[in-house]
Formats: sequence, C-alpha cells, structure tokens
Amino acid sequence: MKVSKYLDTRPVPELPGVIKREVINADDGAPRFCMRVFDVEPGSSTPSHAHWWEHEVFVLSGRGVVISGEKETPIEKDSVIFVPPDEHHCFKNNGDEVLRFICVIPLQ
Amino acid sequence: MKVSKYLDTRPVPELPGVIKREVINADDGAPRFCMRVFDVEPGSSTPSHAHWWEHEVFVLSGRGVVISGEKETPIEKDSVIFVPPDEHHCFKNNGDEVLRFICVIPLQ
Repeated sequence: MKVSKYLDTRPVPELPGVIKREVINADDGAPRFCMRVFDVEPGSSTPSHAHWWEHEVFVLSGRGVVISGEKETPIEKDSVIFVPPDEHHCFKNNGDEVLRFICVIPLQ
Repeated sequence: MKVSKYLDTRPVPELPGVIKREVINADDGAPRFCMRVFDVEPGSSTPSHAHWWEHEVFVLSGRGVVISGEKETPIEKDSVIFVPPDEHHCFKNNGDEVLRFICVIPLQ
C-alpha cells in the first residue's frame, strides 16, 4: 500500500500554465490505470485533442469549461466529467484561481 | 461526454454509516474503470477485506486511518492511497466530520 499527500509528488510541466502530478502510476504497482492531478493556471488550457483512452475527471478546485467540438460546459469544484474514448476535449481555466482536477486514465 | 456534480448521483447505503455514489460507471459508457465517492460517518468504517481488484483513492475531506493488517496510517484531505490487488484494507473515520474520498476500481 502506498499512502502519500498529492503535493509530495513531483510536478511535471505539461505545457505553459499546466502542471501534472502522477500520484499513482505503474511505478507504484498499479496494474490497470493511473491517477494524475492537474493544475491549470488562469487563462491556460490542456491540449485540445482526442485519443483512444478515456478520462475520468473530478474537479478539486477552481472554475473552467470543458470543450468538446462547439460545446462548452462549465465545470467547478465537485464537477465530475467522463470523456469517452476518441471524443475531442479540452479543459480551460476561465476563472481567476488555479483549476485543479484529478484525471484517471488507463495504463494500456 | 458526461458532466455532472457528484452530489447529483444517487447515494447508495453500503453499510451503516457509509454511503457510496457511483459517479462514473459502465452505464455512462466507461469501458475499463469506475469512479465512486464514499462518505464515511465519524466512528464508521468501510469493510475490512481483501479482493482481486486494486483501489486508487483520493481523500476530499475529513480525517481517518487506512488499516492494513496491524498497520494504521493517518489520512486526511489531499491524501492519496494505492491499495494493490489482494492487500487487506479498511478505511476508518476517527475524526469528527465526514470522511469523503474518491475510490477508483476496475470494472472487470
């Protein structure tokens, strides 16, 4: 069993204004899926893309929108977002504090 | 894509003092894993057991301990816990407010 605080995990810059912490991954012995925590600065966004793997997301703090095609849906603390495989998506911080969310993805 | 607030999901009593919300599951089209949110009342615990599937846990609020065999490890808001497959575990609320955590498990 691994017990930690998420801030103990080394932050990795994903792109300007976005950092990622892989709080549980294969190095911990996780066999199937990986838990990450993202911090998105105000005005910044995650990449706008699609891929074969799904996202299961829980918003810890902040405000923003999740964008899929032409549709923007507001998100905030306690929002839950399921992005199915191959659906285009982008998470944008349009608030004035950090948008922080958990994002779980499959490992293979 | 599904966007909701976790409190919109119907709570299901797991056992006395413990409720579960399946915020993302197979009914949403999730192919591989399922996100649940648990509320454990002060003095209550999740079952003490082991099983073939892993847990990836993030504590949203409250205080407690995670118990594995003779070992008790304190947990609180922002704690991350990885329980590997087949490891005995139990989450106990020893604080004075609800212990709330996300727990992700494989679907198969």
